[in-house]
Amino acid sequence: MIHVGIYGATGYTGFELIKLLHHHPQVQVRFATARSAAGQRLNDIFPTLLDTPLISAEEANPGDVDFVFCCLPHGASAPVVQQALEAGARVIDLSADFRLRNPDDYARWYGKGQPHPAPALLEHAVYGLPECYRERIRTAQLVANPGCFPTTVILALYPLLRAGLLGDAPVIVDSKTGISGAGRSLSLRTHFSEAHETFSAYNIGRKHRHLAEMEQETGQRIIFSPHLLPVVRGILSTIYVMVPPATDLADLYEAYRIFADEPFTHVLTEEKLPELRHVVGTNFCVIGATMAMADHTAGQAILVSVEDNLVKGASGQAVQNMNLMAGLDETMGLIERPA
Amino acid sequence: MIHVGIYGATGYTGFELIKLLHHHPQVQVRFATARSAAGQRLNDIFPTLLDTPLISAEEANPGDVDFVFCCLPHGASAPVVQQALEAGARVIDLSADFRLRNPDDYARWYGKGQPHPAPALLEHAVYGLPECYRERIRTAQLVANPGCFPTTVILALYPLLRAGLLGDAPVIVDSKTGISGAGRSLSLRTHFSEAHETFSAYNIGRKHRHLAEMEQETGQRIIFSPHLLPVVRGILSTIYVMVPPATDLADLYEAYRIFADEPFTHVLTEEKLPELRHVVGTNFCVIGATMAMADHTAGQAILVSVEDNLVKGASGQAVQNMNLMAGLDETMGLIERPA
Amino acid sequence: MIHVGIYGATGYTGFELIKLLHHHPQVQVRFATARSAAGQRLNDIFPTLLDTPLISAEEANPGDVDFVFCCLPHGASAPVVQQALEAGARVIDLSADFRLRNPDDYARWYGKGQPHPAPALLEHAVYGLPECYRERIRTAQLVANPGCFPTTVILALYPLLRAGLLGDAPVIVDSKTGISGAGRSLSLRTHFSEAHETFSAYNIGRKHRHLAEMEQETGQRIIFSPHLLPVVRGILSTIYVMVPPATDLADLYEAYRIFADEPFTHVLTEEKLPELRHVVGTNFCVIGATMAMADHTAGQAILVSVEDNLVKGASGQAVQNMNLMAGLDETMGLIERPA
Amino acid sequence: MIHVGIYGATGYTGFELIKLLHHHPQVQVRFATARSAAGQRLNDIFPTLLDTPLISAEEANPGDVDFVFCCLPHGASAPVVQQALEAGARVIDLSADFRLRNPDDYARWYGKGQPHPAPALLEHAVYGLPECYRERIRTAQLVANPGCFPTTVILALYPLLRAGLLGDAPVIVDSKTGISGAGRSLSLRTHFSEAHETFSAYNIGRKHRHLAEMEQETGQRIIFSPHLLPVVRGILSTIYVMVPPATDLADLYEAYRIFADEPFTHVLTEEKLPELRHVVGTNFCVIGATMAMADHTAGQAILVSVEDNLVKGASGQAVQNMNLMAGLDETMGLIERPA
Repeated sequence: MIHVGIYGATGYTGFELIKLLHHHPQVQVRFATARSAAGQRLNDIFPTLLDTPLISAEEANPGDVDFVFCCLPHGASAPVVQQALEAGARVIDLSADFRLRNPDDYARWYGKGQPHPAPALLEHAVYGLPECYRERIRTAQLVANPGCFPTTVILALYPLLRAGLLGDAPVIVDSKTGISGAGRSLSLRTHFSEAHETFSAYNIGRKHRHLAEMEQETGQRIIFSPHLLPVVRGILSTIYVMVPPATDLADLYEAYRIFADEPFTHVLTEEKLPELRHVVGTNFCVIGATMAMADHTAGQAILVSVEDNLVKGASGQAVQNMNLMAGLDETMGLIERPA
Repeated sequence: MIHVGIYGATGYTGFELIKLLHHHPQVQVRFATARSAAGQRLNDIFPTLLDTPLISAEEANPGDVDFVFCCLPHGASAPVVQQALEAGARVIDLSADFRLRNPDDYARWYGKGQPHPAPALLEHAVYGLPECYRERIRTAQLVANPGCFPTTVILALYPLLRAGLLGDAPVIVDSKTGISGAGRSLSLRTHFSEAHETFSAYNIGRKHRHLAEMEQETGQRIIFSPHLLPVVRGILSTIYVMVPPATDLADLYEAYRIFADEPFTHVLTEEKLPELRHVVGTNFCVIGATMAMADHTAGQAILVSVEDNLVKGASGQAVQNMNLMAGLDETMGLIERPA
Repeated sequence: MIHVGIYGATGYTGFELIKLLHHHPQVQVRFATARSAAGQRLNDIFPTLLDTPLISAEEANPGDVDFVFCCLPHGASAPVVQQALEAGARVIDLSADFRLRNPDDYARWYGKGQPHPAPALLEHAVYGLPECYRERIRTAQLVANPGCFPTTVILALYPLLRAGLLGDAPVIVDSKTGISGAGRSLSLRTHFSEAHETFSAYNIGRKHRHLAEMEQETGQRIIFSPHLLPVVRGILSTIYVMVPPATDLADLYEAYRIFADEPFTHVLTEEKLPELRHVVGTNFCVIGATMAMADHTAGQAILVSVEDNLVKGASGQAVQNMNLMAGLDETMGLIERPA
Repeated sequence: MIHVGIYGATGYTGFELIKLLHHHPQVQVRFATARSAAGQRLNDIFPTLLDTPLISAEEANPGDVDFVFCCLPHGASAPVVQQALEAGARVIDLSADFRLRNPDDYARWYGKGQPHPAPALLEHAVYGLPECYRERIRTAQLVANPGCFPTTVILALYPLLRAGLLGDAPVIVDSKTGISGAGRSLSLRTHFSEAHETFSAYNIGRKHRHLAEMEQETGQRIIFSPHLLPVVRGILSTIYVMVPPATDLADLYEAYRIFADEPFTHVLTEEKLPELRHVVGTNFCVIGATMAMADHTAGQAILVSVEDNLVKGASGQAVQNMNLMAGLDETMGLIERPA
């Protein structure tokens, strides 16, 4: 039995993680922390029958557990991660603190000019996308769980990169996310009467923080336009890429065969396109592809990539990483009830 | 041209009111107040092209206008209403401060034990439901605009009361409201990710404040169960009443003929039932009725009553009241674009 | 390993059932039938990665399997059930064909005057609500899986009945259902643009077929008002019952202790009320209760009962019944990923 | 008073048109046709209090009216338009039959290879986008009302074209539409339980018919990806264009000043972006613009354009065209109740 602790259990990723871990056959949750809700139970906060007690971070003992999951905001996460590593736990950090290898990138995108809070740890952190870094994840002490948008984008682009099908032109990523991606903190933007029966773009161009992660992992210049969908869960990214002139659909699908044995990344063929319903509630990322101009030689391809932002885009991927790190079947606790 | 001022323009009823008044052919808005948004313009706050300037309440001069609309929270409204009346304006108060005739009821339901802030005004206030108090509204200095739930309930029950069809049994009111009814203040209950894809009951039984208004106006004992619908606008109330044993459907419809000439209250026949789509965006209340037990003599009737909570349930009804008070056509500025 | 076959796999209950059975550790699906989609695969019809082949009913051999699940429409189900029983399979019928013990009730509510298609089987059918008929279900050859609305209503009333807390007054049931309850057949009523951003009542009073089942199982006279919610899944029933004058909240909760050991029926205390989010995607029915009039002796209680109409209200309950019939742990394959 | 007739009143554009015309101060609706609903009234079909009688197309006399609005499907529209013109009526056709000037384009995109049904009329038809063709519309006998997607796209691109800011690179249009755009015909794709709580792309690349209209009016090569939003009304198009290298945001806004006096097209400044809520229920198209790469010289601009697909994208624009043709104030009947 693996013993785990969770910091930050009262956000949406923390709650999703506890539910997943509760049903994982090899895991026992030893502690779950909360700030203002410390002293309460999980079912005082969420519509669940799970009555996991919530303690303060100060009461938690990371030395007691094999794995620590850190679901705190960026900046708040790094010191807790450091403490847990020092106490001997292996850590899966769901914040952005250890995703960017270059500390300057952290300072620019997250730090408001302040330096990274624990730069010495950066070189030990492994970017937790199993499809790209599976072997390194197995032995990592610290895994930086990817951001929700980047997971859809990197998984769609990685096979084309590996096949040499991406050129110099900027990649245009038009993403649409369910509102749980904005978290549980209250804001007018996520107030029901302001967010329902509407649809909007925000931080378009080169303003959103997840851009740094996408560019780091793909080496492409990216234009990124996130939009807010009036649904709770799910991300769909429509991705416009230039491929070499003679490339056809068969070449794309051939490139994606690199994912043929992936347990959670699935590529549709015959120009079929995935939709949110394929993946909501599951740990799958499903990808479709088409050539934009059947009647032209110009190489414009369109990729559509979907995931549940709270599962493959956060807590499910964290469990997948833990399974790898612990030497368990990678799918354990994750493939019940797919769509 | 009628000059008006609005206190509290940045809540949903205030915004709806400004939009209605902007298109009213006989109205000019002289001022609109806001608290934290004073100094900004309406289109800084809401998705609108109207750039009405927002001033602080202190800067507003109620002596400048013919009518004051007060969209402030209960308790905060009474002193502003008093000041406006003293300055010579006629007032339509959209808060609960002057709806309950008995100051003890105010203290119990709204005052947390504190007495009513302006009890001397209570006897001059007219309950602003035109279908019941049209003549008194025409000459009133102070109109207390009804609550959203009570409008659906009182309009459904009033004709049966007048026809002597209601007995002693408690009336059961099962209401469902769009989330804009909870206002623009942030709360987890109205956070998109907590309010979407769900449905819940709250304050059921005899706990909701609007009960006092319903009982005052109908003289019935009422059991009231509000529910929160995952839509922005609209209330549908399903109302269970006991009628005398021999009553049949024709008797119900005969009673509702009292509304035959009403411009904004419409009764469906042939057991047709209204739904939210009939009324969202309009000032209509639409009512349907049926006998529960076609095969029994027992007199259980079911009424279904719908409105847009921000229009007939608040700001539209306020404009209807202003039209009456100003001697204008009661429907002016209100019947464009019904469903 | 248990071998099962499914008739009618392309409706929502059929699809939900296949997904549940696919992840059941002791079940192997031998066949799944479809009418117009015979020859295709499940992932041609639904957004899923499961590629279960769909065959015609004529190609299916019920003699090959231990259990047959019948997800056909009422009327179409009975002959298939009869054939499966004769072939030696045990049957769980999700249609209404064997729910009503009195064949006259079937003729009246479902038969349009025509007699029951297989009346001889009625006396052998067990009503598949484990909370009420667990022991009889274990040994049954034919289980009639309950309707979606009745499951919420019977589970809420049954403990009060057993405790002698229900009297003669009609019970008022105001139910709200997600639109998947209307099935996969196309209609204007379930066309997105007609069903979204609205809310409506239908078949209120004593018109809905599920009334027969509720009255059969509770012995109460019931007034039933179903409403259509703009969500896909979930039923919330608000139930108004008269209890003896001296009854208080503690008495209600005491009555519900009969469910203390139930794996899938949970009763909230302290006047907490369940909402759809508690149960969507799970096999749970969650119940809350309150006394309507804290300040009166009159015994009006309000019960709120929720379930996922496709899980506890249909396919999940079917699997729960199969587990009982097969001597397996009643929760097998059902408690992964609760809310 | 202007007399008008409507062919095809029971689709969503027909219904929206009747509601608009009913409140137009200078219009009287003389007839409204329906096929299967002929003989019924509008409120038998839609949730409205309008009881406009519906007659068959055969009973309608276009010679009786000044203007005919044709809301029939493409192909069915042309003969009715021809007949109405011959009877002396001026015609606003909401179908695609007269939008494409080149009959070969019609044959390819709409005709399934069959030739245009009334090619002689094509040269007389004016493309009914007032922002581009106002003077020609005033005197036209036949106006081809633009498609819903093209209206958002052409209005966003036209000022940049006029200012010489568009080059040779294909324009990428990523559009998201409410489901009413798919019409009132039943299909699984628009079945509530299949279309809610999801989001999907369809006909992406160069497959959607509206591409022809966009390319005709802009002269640009376009890649077009429509997506289906889980809302009833509204289109948001995110448009990626290459502008000359030295172009900056001020140049974009300068180009858009060509719309400064437009009554229904509004351009936001300061990088503000419009959202669906700005325009649903109104005849406005609102546009925002930003440069993608603040830190690069490469000229990638992003435009966001929104409208209500049933108003500015169809019936409101048709009324705007009628106002122009009749010499009325262009905004008559259209500016009540904007957001």
